[in-house]
Amino acid sequence: MSADSHTSSAPSARTRVRQAPARAHYDAHALHRVLDACLVGHVSFVVDDWPMSIPTAIARLDDWLYLHGSRSSRLYRVLASGAPVSVSVCLVDGLVKARSTFHCSMNYRSAVVMGRAEAVAEEERAELLYRFSEHLIPCPRSAYREHLAKELKATMLVRLPLDEASVKIRTGGPIDDEADLTLPHWAGVVPLATTHGEPEPAADLAPGIAVPDELRGLHER
Amino acid sequence: MSADSHTSSAPSARTRVRQAPARAHYDAHALHRVLDACLVGHVSFVVDDWPMSIPTAIARLDDWLYLHGSRSSRLYRVLASGAPVSVSVCLVDGLVKARSTFHCSMNYRSAVVMGRAEAVAEEERAELLYRFSEHLIPCPRSAYREHLAKELKATMLVRLPLDEASVKIRTGGPIDDEADLTLPHWAGVVPLATTHGEPEPAADLAPGIAVPDELRGLHER
Repeated sequence: MSADSHTSSAPSARTRVRQAPARAHYDAHALHRVLDACLVGHVSFVVDDWPMSIPTAIARLDDWLYLHGSRSSRLYRVLASGAPVSVSVCLVDGLVKARSTFHCSMNYRSAVVMGRAEAVAEEERAELLYRFSEHLIPCPRSAYREHLAKELKATMLVRLPLDEASVKIRTGGPIDDEADLTLPHWAGVVPLATTHGEPEPAADLAPGIAVPDELRGLHER
Repeated sequence: MSADSHTSSAPSARTRVRQAPARAHYDAHALHRVLDACLVGHVSFVVDDWPMSIPTAIARLDDWLYLHGSRSSRLYRVLASGAPVSVSVCLVDGLVKARSTFHCSMNYRSAVVMGRAEAVAEEERAELLYRFSEHLIPCPRSAYREHLAKELKATMLVRLPLDEASVKIRTGGPIDDEADLTLPHWAGVVPLATTHGEPEPAADLAPGIAVPDELRGLHER
């Protein structure tokens, strides 16, 4: 995937967007923006000749897509073995109501990354796990105690390169048939957004410990 | 999948939740509730020996999971052929901040449906496409003009049975190590929710056409 913005060609035949190709993007900037807005990706992999799909936490760090989980899980055994996988993400930004159901749509940002994952070696894992956490929950390292050796051992961290990926984005209003524009039916967009509620302290939180600014900020922004 | 609520056993070995099995549900009620809260599912299928993952609009109607798209798309050709597929959905309900990154988590509702899809015959399609639309955009049929014959021809509607599926749900606060409870780090949950903005009329909407109550209601609720 080129680092230039708005490169117009797919990095491989199989990442080429076939439906609504005008909505496709293949540049790294667009890919990073979509992945960085997502907490969860859906990993597709084959087990016993059947395509499985499992949602899991993701974080894009530098030029890699990281996934983490328990070392004992089947998903991570498959990923660490370098088997072929795809990961897709999708954020829905709006419901697009047209005059006909045929032209109804959704505004969305989606991406698909294909490749073979690799396990991250133990010496790199400690630092990357802090960065992974920080993508999901925007707290600095000082908000946590240090990793324990047994935790680093039990946590699998794998990564996929981002060089075979595609992004698809729809924005804007409905595109109705010309003949339908005079019909008495409402048409337009209902925007959707993810909002953060006020942080709720754990039942076992000792008194006098303040909510980190970064988490309060999510709610207030 | 049993219609009883809270059946405790998986409908098949491959749908058995292996990680955090205490969070698993296998009853139809739980499955319907999670699917009905989702607009998009991620379909896993195999093309040229590679597992692909594509996000697409979904609707659970009766005991089926429906997916629709263009008759010309590769995804729908694969689905209509009865090839093996899985569809996963995931809603993130909260960021769970613990005293250690190891115990950080997310609150979520997820589901995986496995099976072979079938194409819906043309005579059933018209009615089901209205219901499909109504799941995504809660407007009654009277909010649209009628389907055109060419639209019904161009739209593929496929469905998967729900008898091989699993649900996984996490709720509640962080579960820290006993030894960490006295640390000075904040712990708790930042709730996440999807909110609907005020409906935005299309640029080409004729004057004097009111927003349907159902769409205004999404914003106000």
